Amino acid sequence: MNHKMGSDKPDILVIGAGAIGSFYGAILKRAGCAVSVVLRSGYDVVKAAGFRFTSPLGDLSWTPDQVYQPGDTPVQIPDYVLLCVKVLPGEDRAELVRPWLGEDTGLVLIENGLDIERELADAFPGNPLVSCLAFIAVSRTGPGTVKHQAYGQLVMGNFPMGFDQHCEQLATLFREGGIDINGTDAVVGERWRKCVWNTPFNPLSVLANGADTLTMLDAPGGEALLRLLMEEVIAVAEADGYPMPADIIEKNMSGTRAMGAYKNSMALDYLNDRPIELDAILGNVVTIADRLKVPVPHLRTVLVTLRIRQG
Amino acid sequence: MNHKMGSDKPDILVIGAGAIGSFYGAILKRAGCAVSVVLRSGYDVVKAAGFRFTSPLGDLSWTPDQVYQPGDTPVQIPDYVLLCVKVLPGEDRAELVRPWLGEDTGLVLIENGLDIERELADAFPGNPLVSCLAFIAVSRTGPGTVKHQAYGQLVMGNFPMGFDQHCEQLATLFREGGIDINGTDAVVGERWRKCVWNTPFNPLSVLANGADTLTMLDAPGGEALLRLLMEEVIAVAEADGYPMPADIIEKNMSGTRAMGAYKNSMALDYLNDRPIELDAILGNVVTIADRLKVPVPHLRTVLVTLRIRQG
Repeated sequence: MNHKMGSDKPDILVIGAGAIGSFYGAILKRAGCAVSVVLRSGYDVVKAAGFRFTSPLGDLSWTPDQVYQPGDTPVQIPDYVLLCVKVLPGEDRAELVRPWLGEDTGLVLIENGLDIERELADAFPGNPLVSCLAFIAVSRTGPGTVKHQAYGQLVMGNFPMGFDQHCEQLATLFREGGIDINGTDAVVGERWRKCVWNTPFNPLSVLANGADTLTMLDAPGGEALLRLLMEEVIAVAEADGYPMPADIIEKNMSGTRAMGAYKNSMALDYLNDRPIELDAILGNVVTIADRLKVPVPHLRTVLVTLRIRQG
Repeated sequence: MNHKMGSDKPDILVIGAGAIGSFYGAILKRAGCAVSVVLRSGYDVVKAAGFRFTSPLGDLSWTPDQVYQPGDTPVQIPDYVLLCVKVLPGEDRAELVRPWLGEDTGLVLIENGLDIERELADAFPGNPLVSCLAFIAVSRTGPGTVKHQAYGQLVMGNFPMGFDQHCEQLATLFREGGIDINGTDAVVGERWRKCVWNTPFNPLSVLANGADTLTMLDAPGGEALLRLLMEEVIAVAEADGYPMPADIIEKNMSGTRAMGAYKNSMALDYLNDRPIELDAILGNVVTIADRLKVPVPHLRTVLVTLRIRQG
């Protein structure tokens, strides 16, 4: 590894330093790493003044060691690249990452959805690949300014399975920086588990024009439909080799009701005219279902209707 | 029957004289009937100047014999009431009709959807009940002004079955007035046949924010989803005792493609902020499916999603 002189901490490069990327960059900075960023928007502001945070964790504001734009030449090959961009059809994430990756650079995905690792595993078969799911409420409020509201835990493991020394090192650093890490040697199963909630609730809320959770549950037939959608996700997960706990639907339902009316991140993306991660959250589930011959009529209806709407 | 003095033609009262009601009123007026109307909007204009039409059938403009508002007392009990209001949850059509109906008055429904006759058959079991489906392109352009663009054929029969002397009389009058009547003794089957197209296309176009037919068919998975929705409608129709022709899906698809991009009436209602006939077109189909234990996962997803959106 290319450690910086005078430090035994790895060098980090965050690609896609929006709310998520700048938050986890801040945590690793706090753990003592050199952390640089590649930005597409807000470059001038971040170059001049770094990231300004409000957070219950204290002052997370930080200044990157290097601020790059796409096309720049890296000063140093990083030990880890954190990829935190949205997973969208127009976005070739392998090409986005390629210029910044050394032979041994660990690739760390902090992204939502299912089967989102494959294109990077295929493009960079020799690089360590760490897959993370973020449980966090954080949003970008302007160029270089971020509001961290709550949580921050990462579920982490290697793709497609395992928990190697790179995971160990990163988990230690994130913990030193102040967040919880839930290590797993079956990260794909954890993605399925999260999809049991996200895959039904997120796209359906977009079809319902940004409806909140309780509006969805309390409409005539709403809770029943959400349960049917969850059952389909669980059936696909099981066929894919990841059986879900028997009580997962009941726990999801009681947890959702306990939380009160809530607009999920995809509903907010939709309401703010931002692209939605439809394939990562739903399209890939239907693709896997079709491959494994699991019927998913309710999921398919939601998917195709959203595709018609995008067309 | 209470025929007007000097005429052997029946007296007609149109309730809900929007585009559809004022068009078929015009046809019966042209056939020599006395035709009165009950109006909720445009009363003053119609009272002063009647209905102004543009139509390929010639000048259909006409002046009603009586112009009523809800709550008025009828001058004469009509031989036939034509009910042409939208079928909406907040609308008690039996109560709307009750003050105007004599013991022998024939009740003629010119309305869309499936199983929309039952509440009237239950409320007025002694009155003849004629059920019609309109195949017409007509729209209200302002108070008392109507644009008839094309077609006008009615499919007509008694509910729940048969074709009695009231149907015969009405069919003759409508034909004299210049439109085609397709008489049937199985009008419910004709409603199912129309639903094979309307039930998939109309609500899905609303979910897709008013998408036209070709946008829906050409989106990835769009035609396949529309076929699945049609197959479900056909399965429910068959379980209800109305098997559909084997080639109905292919004919619907080729006919739809031949027509070019087209926004259906429910899409237009949605885009113009008017209420949509969701239960008449889709909700009743799912209710019948549940009663007959026919699985309709794709239809149910569309229905519940629209209900969430309305909630």
